[in-house]
Formats: sequence, C-alpha cells, structure tokens
Amino acid sequence: MEKVFASIITIGDELLIGQVIDTNSAWMAQELNKVGISIKHRLAVGDVREDIWQALDEESKHASLILITGGLGPTADDITKPLLCDYFGGKMITDQPTLDHIKTIFERVFKRPMGERNAKQAEVPDTCTVLPNEKGTAPGMLFKKDGKIFISLPGVPHEMKWIMTNKVIPIIPDLFQTGFIEHRTLLTAGIGESSLADLVQDIEEALPLHIKLAYLPNYGMVRMRLTGFGSDKSNLQKEVDAQFSLFKERVKEFLVIDEDLPLELVVGRLLKERDQTLATAESCTGGNIARMITSHAGASAYYKGSVVSYDNSVKQKVLHITDETLQTAGAVSEATVQQMAKSVLELMQTDYAIAVSGIMGPEGGTNEKPVGMVWVAVANKDRVQTKLFNFRFDRARNIELTSNNALNLLRIFIIETS
Amino acid sequence: MEKVFASIITIGDELLIGQVIDTNSAWMAQELNKVGISIKHRLAVGDVREDIWQALDEESKHASLILITGGLGPTADDITKPLLCDYFGGKMITDQPTLDHIKTIFERVFKRPMGERNAKQAEVPDTCTVLPNEKGTAPGMLFKKDGKIFISLPGVPHEMKWIMTNKVIPIIPDLFQTGFIEHRTLLTAGIGESSLADLVQDIEEALPLHIKLAYLPNYGMVRMRLTGFGSDKSNLQKEVDAQFSLFKERVKEFLVIDEDLPLELVVGRLLKERDQTLATAESCTGGNIARMITSHAGASAYYKGSVVSYDNSVKQKVLHITDETLQTAGAVSEATVQQMAKSVLELMQTDYAIAVSGIMGPEGGTNEKPVGMVWVAVANKDRVQTKLFNFRFDRARNIELTSNNALNLLRIFIIETS
Repeated sequence: MEKVFASIITIGDELLIGQVIDTNSAWMAQELNKVGISIKHRLAVGDVREDIWQALDEESKHASLILITGGLGPTADDITKPLLCDYFGGKMITDQPTLDHIKTIFERVFKRPMGERNAKQAEVPDTCTVLPNEKGTAPGMLFKKDGKIFISLPGVPHEMKWIMTNKVIPIIPDLFQTGFIEHRTLLTAGIGESSLADLVQDIEEALPLHIKLAYLPNYGMVRMRLTGFGSDKSNLQKEVDAQFSLFKERVKEFLVIDEDLPLELVVGRLLKERDQTLATAESCTGGNIARMITSHAGASAYYKGSVVSYDNSVKQKVLHITDETLQTAGAVSEATVQQMAKSVLELMQTDYAIAVSGIMGPEGGTNEKPVGMVWVAVANKDRVQTKLFNFRFDRARNIELTSNNALNLLRIFIIETS
Repeated sequence: MEKVFASIITIGDELLIGQVIDTNSAWMAQELNKVGISIKHRLAVGDVREDIWQALDEESKHASLILITGGLGPTADDITKPLLCDYFGGKMITDQPTLDHIKTIFERVFKRPMGERNAKQAEVPDTCTVLPNEKGTAPGMLFKKDGKIFISLPGVPHEMKWIMTNKVIPIIPDLFQTGFIEHRTLLTAGIGESSLADLVQDIEEALPLHIKLAYLPNYGMVRMRLTGFGSDKSNLQKEVDAQFSLFKERVKEFLVIDEDLPLELVVGRLLKERDQTLATAESCTGGNIARMITSHAGASAYYKGSVVSYDNSVKQKVLHITDETLQTAGAVSEATVQQMAKSVLELMQTDYAIAVSGIMGPEGGTNEKPVGMVWVAVANKDRVQTKLFNFRFDRARNIELTSNNALNLLRIFIIETS
C-alpha cells in the first residue's frame, strides 16, 4: 500500500499581503490525515491567472490529490473558475440544482431576489462533477486529469468545511486506495511536550513502523495521537488499542481524557454526570472562558453564566470585592480571586465557580506583578482552591493559557471533591 | 521598474498535519509589502530533505528573494542547516559571536550551563552571512546563489520577527531596487459582497491597471482593499488616495471605517474619543463580545465588563429581568433585551450598553423562534434601540454574526446619539 499525497493550494492576494491568516489549510490537512492522506505541500498563490495555472501544474507532479480553496466568490477579482474551465477543458454551463439552491437561499435567507452575479455562481465547467454547497452559493467542483484528482472549494471556512466533511471526505475511499487508518487520541495537562516525550520514549521507540505517535501541544496541554495504517481493519484496531493502553498507563498522572475532546467539554461532561452547575468570574480573560464553554451546544445544562469584571468597579459592585482587598492585596491577588469565586458561586447559585485575575500584557506589568502573572481560584460551597501562574507570552497566548489552566484546575477540583 | 518578488518557505511537519496555524508568513508578507516586495508564493513543506531542496530550486525560479523559516531548533529532527550547507556549498564552522551569545543566554536567562545541542546552534555554513538573533539561540543566515538571495530564519515567531525587523528589512534597499506599494482598506457593514460589487462596478472597471481592488468578506462585514504599485511614491499615493476617495464616497452609507481596523476597535475608538464607557449583557453569545473587546490591549479605558446571563436565573437575579417578562415575552424577546441593556448600564454605571439574546442552534429552535433568531439592544441612559436578526447558519457563525452586528448597531447608535 503506497502513501497517498495531497497538496493544498489556497488562492487569494489577501494571503500574500498577510491580511488574512490561513486557517483553512490547517483544518483540511487534519481532516485528510484522518482518512490516510498525507500532505505534501501547502501553497498560497495570488489572484494571478498564470500563477494559479503554474501551481496546478507543479503540485500535480507532487501529489495525487490537489485541493484548491478560494477564488470562487461573486466579485470581479475572482478569476479561478474561468481558469479551471480552460485548464481542464470544456465549456461553462449552468448547473441547474446549484441555480435552484442559490435562488432558494436568496428567497428564504436573504429575502431578496437573486442578482446576476449570484446566478453566475451556478455556472461551472462541464468537465467537473459538482460538489453541492448547502452552506453557501459557490459550489465545489471535482476534476480529473492525467490520473490526478483536483477539487476546488470556496474559501469561506464554514462552506469549505461543510463540503469537505459531507462531499469530499466520504468519497476518498472510492478515489484512493488508502487502506485503513485508526486514530486514538489522549489529552494531557501539566506536562510539556519534551518531558512527555522523555516519559514515553521507550514505548514510542518500540512502536511498529505502521503506527506513529504525534504530539499536538496547545496552550498548556498536549494531545498525543496514535495513528495506525493497515490493510486489515480488525487487526489494526487491536494493535492500536494495545499500544494506546501502554501510553495511557504511562502518562496517567497527566491524563485528562482518553479521547479527542476539548477540555471545556471534559469539564462539561463531569458536571453533567453529577447534575451540577458552574459559574465563572473573569477579569483578565475577559469572557474567553465563558465563550469556550458556550461555544458548544448543550452548555446550558451545566453552565449558568459569568461576570466579566474587567473594571475594578465591577469587581466591587457586582462581585462585592471589598475596597480593603483591592487596596491592600490588589486586583491581581489570591484574596481577590478567592472572593470573586465565592461571590459568583453565591450570586449565580451554582455548585462550582472559577475566578481569574491577572495581567495579560503587553502593558500593565510591574516588577512585583509582571505581565503573565495570573491568580486562579476554583470553588464549591465548602472550599476554595487557588493557584498562581506566571506565563511569559503575548496577550493572546496568555489569555488562552489562563483559560485552559483554569478549566483544568476545576477539572481536578471536581474529581477530588466529589 | 520591475516588481521584486519574494517567496516564503515554511518548514515543518507540524504545518502539514494541521497541528500549527502558520502566522509567521502572514506577518512576513506584511512587512515585505511595506518595503515594496510582493509575495509570489507562501509554501509549507515537511521536514524532508528532498522536499526542502526541491522547494529552494522551485521558488528561486519564481522569486528574487527566498525566505525560509523553521527547521533550526535544537532537536534531532532538524535537518535544515546541513541541507543549506550542501545546497549553497561550503563547510560548517562555528560562528564565535553566536557561540558567545548562546553562552550568555544560558548563563543569564536559563541560569544553567549551555548543552551540546545548543552549542551546535552556533555552527553555520561558511558560505553564509550570519544575521544575529538577539532573542534566541538560532541565528539567521543569508546566502547568495545565481543572483538570488536566500534568508533562513528560526521559526519561533518573536525571534523571526526580531531578525526580520532589525537585520533583514533594513538591508532590503541595498539588495533590491523595489518599487512602492500602497494599500488602502475600508470596512463596510450591512451589505453583501455582491451588492457591494454592483454598487462600485463602474469605479472598479475604470481602475488603472496598476491599482487593484479586492473584497474580503467576514461575518456580515466586507473589507475592500485597494492596492497600487508604482515607482514614484508620491504620485502613487496621490493616485491611490484619489481612487480610494471615489470608493469611500460611493459606499458611504455602509462605511464603518476607512482603515484596516477591526470593528471592536472602531467602537473602542469612538468611546475613547468621547471618554465614555461600555458594558455588555450577553446571553446567546456567551461572552464572545466581551472577549472580542478585551482581546485588545487598552480596552480597560472604555470597557467595564459583562454579565453573561446564559441561564434565565442569572437574567433574573443579576439583571433583574422580571418573571413576567420572561414568562410572557420569553428570554428571546425585545422586552428582555431592552431590560438587559438598561439593567447592565445601571449595574456597571456605563454610558452605553449592548444586550443580546437569541437561539444559536443547532437545538432549541421553535416555529415561532427559529434557530438564528436574535434580539439585540443598545442603550444609553436616555434611549434603548432594538433590532431583530434572523441568521440561518451554524452555531459558531451565528455567534460571530450576532457579535459583529451588535457591535455595529452600537457603533451607529453612538454616532447618532452624540
């Protein structure tokens, strides 16, 4: 069984002037990896006909599957579709199902008639197989040339993701002989990537060639993913499970969960199992912990809300932190987060609370309380536990690290106190 | 004057399995653009010797300047430096200033002796010019081959940025005769990409060849970017400004701001200019509006905080929404968001407030109140204004759309009421 390679080409001047950060191709790479496709190149090119043409030529030398995103919108700077028509031959025709779909979107969602520009989005080269786009007006297109598969997708992330998930990934087994792939993922916290690698070194080194371990660090947590390739599905599953058990046992001290689940859902599951609830009081994270928790449907079963007390007056007025505490200990202090946690627990009548206060930077640090210093408290009605962190990164990263570490502190607290 | 092109090659398996989102090359592209260098390609390749070699060959056909990041760390899987030594000829030597610098970093920052792996980082091919790295242990390297310039930089963002800013950008004028590039960006809201294109069609079609227009849609807003290229900076600026004025005038009804600024900072600036403050009361966005505002340093000058009233009990207890309102009008209603806005304004003693309540999906919709239905209120002490939205997307997008539209409603409200 040979490895199947894909290249991802993203089209758009905005990528070349650095106005937009490309998150699409990282997501696509992940999804393709899961079905056994390896990525050869990720390439960004501008809205320049000859550059796109050249990229198609070049990447088809390196990969069996070429994915193209962007350049399919309704505006005039888009040149991709006519180019694809020329590149793969054929002529432009109107795809009736796509046209009907666009009309429906305009009638039902936008509540105005479809314009000419949008009707044009239903035109596709007659050499392509249309990949319907339920989430938008620009359809995906699949072409075959010289034994290679080319798939063109819109650049709008949720549209691209929908087509990938529903129309591309399901046909991969028909298009390529990729064999079977089994993934097992576990999530760790409280240990760095290199220490984790030292911890499991002997198990990793003894892995058979067709099973690989990847470390996926993410803001204070590290995911470990085992990926096995094989032609016999049931054998492969047994082998991967056996190896996975070894890793799980070895890292158990740091193990958060043995599946691919974000931390906020791990916490949510613990709360739901216990029929308990959570509230948060956030200063420096500015609502990011609340946002993480509520980004998942079903959070209302265990999450009541947050007081984002960005300003000290809100800490005083809504969370009743005393003048004395703020003046003697300060807003970033153990005493303040203890009071914040107790206060929001009482205010929102929950079983657990998280409180955070810190200095995220780049301004606001002092010698005594430098940028990255954060106090976190977790509480139930009987107990408050606190922890001091010192992160040394930029604002965005400090906020993410604070949020993850606070959620992990609560996770351990729930397990220990129930 | 010919355009000078650069290609940016990022090296690392982590980029190809989607583990890491590449923010380096977007930043590099921006900085190079400012000094008149256009980007031809951004290419990500794995830690595979022949793939990197091929990428150097290939990109040097397309560009005069090839920037390489990554692959210079102290771990064993790094193969970039020996490859560069072979690619450009020469032999590895120890660069004494770099070695001294690494020693100093270990003594002063890490407070432990320098290890062998790190001493090796001072080894460079004798065919390169060393670009010192004050922020880390891996130096930058500049090579020349066949009239092309190759620059290798570490992948750690703050190290790469320091070398780019201090060692690369300053020598660009000596290395290349670049023209000038001018960008102008405006942000619109309340109009779709294709309607916007129709609105400006005649101006866009009349643009001279050296000025291009691009549309960058993002959750209910569209950025329009004009890019001009020329050899006479002052003439070019005048031309681009003149064209920009035409677009600005034409889209004025939808114009949010005539610079490249996120909406939450536009609102922040309006508040700061007026020395006024804002609080938010968020139900369905779950803290996302607070997070957007506080993700920027300096938000404390105008933002006091948020009550994330995800559960109805929090709406009652903290925001004093009456039982009657919740029972007759419901949590997702005009009456509720009006009360939420007034209440948080009073509670946090701010000049303005935003309140949102809606159904983000995928569950929880009814015939009367379908998924995507959102009530937004903005208020000052004299007035409350409300607006009903009906989004029809997935949860994540509904949350983004609600947040942007709420901020935009406040933006207009501030301008109209002050």
